[in-house]
Amino acid sequence: MLEIFENSFPHRDYSIEIVCPEFTSVCPKTGQPDFGTLTFLYVPDKWCIELKSLKMYLQQFRNQGIFYEDITNRIVDDLVNTLHPRRLKLTAAFTPRGGISTTVNVEWTGEK
Amino acid sequence: MLEIFENSFPHRDYSIEIVCPEFTSVCPKTGQPDFGTLTFLYVPDKWCIELKSLKMYLQQFRNQGIFYEDITNRIVDDLVNTLHPRRLKLTAAFTPRGGISTTVNVEWTGEK
Amino acid sequence: MLEIFENSFPHRDYSIEIVCPEFTSVCPKTGQPDFGTLTFLYVPDKWCIELKSLKMYLQQFRNQGIFYEDITNRIVDDLVNTLHPRRLKLTAAFTPRGGISTTVNVEWTGEK
Amino acid sequence: MLEIFENSFPHRDYSIEIVCPEFTSVCPKTGQPDFGTLTFLYVPDKWCIELKSLKMYLQQFRNQGIFYEDITNRIVDDLVNTLHPRRLKLTAAFTPRGGISTTVNVEWTGEK
Amino acid sequence: MLEIFENSFPHRDYSIEIVCPEFTSVCPKTGQPDFGTLTFLYVPDKWCIELKSLKMYLQQFRNQGIFYEDITNRIVDDLVNTLHPRRLKLTAAFTPRGGISTTVNVEWTGEK
Amino acid sequence: MLEIFENSFPHRDYSIEIVCPEFTSVCPKTGQPDFGTLTFLYVPDKWCIELKSLKMYLQQFRNQGIFYEDITNRIVDDLVNTLHPRRLKLTAAFTPRGGISTTVNVEWTGEK
Amino acid sequence: MLEIFENSFPHRDYSIEIVCPEFTSVCPKTGQPDFGTLTFLYVPDKWCIELKSLKMYLQQFRNQGIFYEDITNRIVDDLVNTLHPRRLKLTAAFTPRGGISTTVNVEWTGEK
Amino acid sequence: MLEIFENSFPHRDYSIEIVCPEFTSVCPKTGQPDFGTLTFLYVPDKWCIELKSLKMYLQQFRNQGIFYEDITNRIVDDLVNTLHPRRLKLTAAFTPRGGISTTVNVEWTGEK
Amino acid sequence: MLEIFENSFPHRDYSIEIVCPEFTSVCPKTGQPDFGTLTFLYVPDKWCIELKSLKMYLQQFRNQGIFYEDITNRIVDDLVNTLHPRRLKLTAAFTPRGGISTTVNVEWTGEK
Amino acid sequence: MLEIFENSFPHRDYSIEIVCPEFTSVCPKTGQPDFGTLTFLYVPDKWCIELKSLKMYLQQFRNQGIFYEDITNRIVDDLVNTLHPRRLKLTAAFTPRGGISTTVNVEWTGEK
Repeated sequence: MLEIFENSFPHRDYSIEIVCPEFTSVCPKTGQPDFGTLTFLYVPDKWCIELKSLKMYLQQFRNQGIFYEDITNRIVDDLVNTLHPRRLKLTAAFTPRGGISTTVNVEWTGEK
Repeated sequence: MLEIFENSFPHRDYSIEIVCPEFTSVCPKTGQPDFGTLTFLYVPDKWCIELKSLKMYLQQFRNQGIFYEDITNRIVDDLVNTLHPRRLKLTAAFTPRGGISTTVNVEWTGEK
Repeated sequence: MLEIFENSFPHRDYSIEIVCPEFTSVCPKTGQPDFGTLTFLYVPDKWCIELKSLKMYLQQFRNQGIFYEDITNRIVDDLVNTLHPRRLKLTAAFTPRGGISTTVNVEWTGEK
Repeated sequence: MLEIFENSFPHRDYSIEIVCPEFTSVCPKTGQPDFGTLTFLYVPDKWCIELKSLKMYLQQFRNQGIFYEDITNRIVDDLVNTLHPRRLKLTAAFTPRGGISTTVNVEWTGEK
Repeated sequence: MLEIFENSFPHRDYSIEIVCPEFTSVCPKTGQPDFGTLTFLYVPDKWCIELKSLKMYLQQFRNQGIFYEDITNRIVDDLVNTLHPRRLKLTAAFTPRGGISTTVNVEWTGEK
Repeated sequence: MLEIFENSFPHRDYSIEIVCPEFTSVCPKTGQPDFGTLTFLYVPDKWCIELKSLKMYLQQFRNQGIFYEDITNRIVDDLVNTLHPRRLKLTAAFTPRGGISTTVNVEWTGEK
Repeated sequence: MLEIFENSFPHRDYSIEIVCPEFTSVCPKTGQPDFGTLTFLYVPDKWCIELKSLKMYLQQFRNQGIFYEDITNRIVDDLVNTLHPRRLKLTAAFTPRGGISTTVNVEWTGEK
Repeated sequence: MLEIFENSFPHRDYSIEIVCPEFTSVCPKTGQPDFGTLTFLYVPDKWCIELKSLKMYLQQFRNQGIFYEDITNRIVDDLVNTLHPRRLKLTAAFTPRGGISTTVNVEWTGEK
Repeated sequence: MLEIFENSFPHRDYSIEIVCPEFTSVCPKTGQPDFGTLTFLYVPDKWCIELKSLKMYLQQFRNQGIFYEDITNRIVDDLVNTLHPRRLKLTAAFTPRGGISTTVNVEWTGEK
Repeated sequence: MLEIFENSFPHRDYSIEIVCPEFTSVCPKTGQPDFGTLTFLYVPDKWCIELKSLKMYLQQFRNQGIFYEDITNRIVDDLVNTLHPRRLKLTAAFTPRGGISTTVNVEWTGEK
């Protein structure tokens, strides 16, 4: 579902930051909606992510029951498998639930 | 009482930050309530902490008489013994008592 | 279209920062206008960029359909080919689209 | 007068910050009251300072004529001699007198 | 103890604001020190308050056990009886005790 | 010493605000320097105050022993007698002395 | 020199605010440059002020020796005589000279 | 081009605020692009404005030469003629040109 | 035109920072005035710059047509040739023109 | 004139910061008063500076004509010669004159 387009400048190391303050999913234990801000930072190799498809891809989580840790890591995996970037980092900051707020940080630097 | 769930991404070093601004316990000397903000930062190994159980666990201190230093270190010990994280840090910032405010910082990096 | 004028002080390494908060182009997929702030930082060699011509040059993108990544890299290429600077860096921060905002960073340090 | 209690976690290096914005003493030259904020940061060894006794201890200076430099160093000495901490730092920021404000910084790292 | 000096401009209604952030007294129940900021606003008639004597007068409370409400009203009474101002207002804002902070407002407008 | 120049627009009610943050005089009791910010707001009639002469006039207080209340009222009187403005207001905010800061407000609206 | 263009909406009372932070003139006493921010607020009648001509008009003061009060009132007069607005207000805030800063406020509401 | 849809709650006076920070048009004198933020506030009667059509409508100005005052009033007229609101206010704040920034305020309250 | 006076403390390396927020010159292409803030930081050797002469020197640019880059470098050259400082740095931050703002940084460290 | 008292803790390296926002002297060229904030930071050796004498010492400059650079260096010299500190730093930030503000930084680290 994630679309990519060719990076016209693969000979150059440059970075792209994408901020999505409108992420929402569902808590797998309570069935209640969760809300968070996702911040991506990546260095493209042969491909760039097409932003509209990223938006549609993130909307798939809207009615899905899933833990914060799994959201963050699964999105990183999906992006790595589609984009094959040089480096990618994702910070997912979720709003308070029961007086507790959580932020998950995942950084991918080329591991398998 | 602390519940854990399997970390689906143990091959990856990533961090989870949890902020709990609504911690309360009781002063062992005066019997008066204490209030503070707990900030956790940890790198999971095989397990992640389930947030609702963390909330319930922290509520156990509500009517318990205990020093700031003991609260902070005991919570670190309980989390380390249950989670077996790679690294864990806890900052506990308590509100003023008698015009004096206290913050305790504990960082666990794998010691026994 | 980019005009340059002779750098009267080529024996000296000094830097020029230029901020353009009124950049606009058109999204190649939706035909909708995009808006962003471009921040240049460069060290001139024999030439400096004439600011009015830079303004006119950036206005060429006003009705052009082009991706964020291509805008940023193409402007870097055009400036490098015209100015032959010692170093040049461009940060392009675009406003939110569909709740998602993007920033592209390109740094040129003498590569071909 | 300073009471201590056993540090239940001496196998661990952790820090305790204590802020006392309500310190007051008397100027030895003019007999006028002085006011300041004391900020302690220490790493306990076998003992922790009991906060209520610290408050009482600091109140002893309330009607005592003493210079800023002596206050700060004497408190450090008293705490070091009672607590035997691993490290201790004290910053004492006093309010303006005659349009002049003074801050004294003392850091103890194990010297005799 | 409060000294006054002649108001050289009694034909004019004008106001004087005095802020004392270093007020301290003692709690009559616990014997512990209290701290607060006193803000006076008055319109003089025949007399003005001499500031150094006001400072000395306020220092009398330093070791006196007295309730917040009594402090504020007694100071208003003393000033009214000495100064005979046209109007006088006193706001006494005390620092938190047991997590509770208190402000007492007294306004005198010529009543007996 | 205060110079005035003709108001070329006396048929119009308009206001002039002048802020002097560098006022200094001497305390008549201690001989110590005082510092304050004077803020004037006036509506001119036939004359405007010349600013350089106002600066020189205020410098006359530099080594003069005088109370805050007298400074403020005397300056108002001098300005009223020289300028004959339609309205004039002066706020004099002095820096803390002995932990106490004072602001004097005088408003002249045509009284004798 | 001030150009106007026809107000296409004279049947409607609406306001136009214009802020010019780059005003400069010369002090008539010292020959030194003065700097200020002019803020206009007006309700047009049959005419609007053309902005480029306003900029050119204000530049005429660049090398002219003139008092703050005269600048502000003269500009109001020139605008009133050219524009014949329904209402016009000008605030001229000048930067400090000799530690003194001045703001002149003129409001025109239809007087002759 | 502006589309409307039926207000389902015409029996109630309520307000709608719409902020468009990405408005751009062209200066009729210089041919250079202008940029501004439009802020609408209206009370609907029988109809509400459809937001996507408002966006398309505003994009019509993208390459049109038009004065600030005309932009603001014309948009108000078009909205009034299409929407027939109870009240409508438009504030158009444009970015600086030649060191001068302009804001136009139009308020429609039922006039013809 | 730049006056210097003898540095009475040449045996010591110390720094002097001078901020001039009221610089103005003229654009050589459009004849329109430019405005900027100049920030100097230098370490004197045998001479210090006299501030009033620096003010007069900078006023020479008031009606001169000159590019930002040339202003900044020429002032550096003039200061270096007159002062012979140990080190000198100049940052010139100009206000926006055509929606574009520019800052030039020049650092002189003893080159010929 | 500067008084010192014995440092009771010479075996310890600790620092004392003193801020004096009410410094004033006279410009040797114009005879006009200058104003500034002096910030001292020193590490005492055998002696500490007595604050009241520092205040009196600084007041000696009140009516003295002296350049900023000389003020700062002379005060450093006087303090070094009286105190014989281990290290001393003085930052003197003066208010704007003629639109220009100046800060002098002197750091003494044991040179002769």
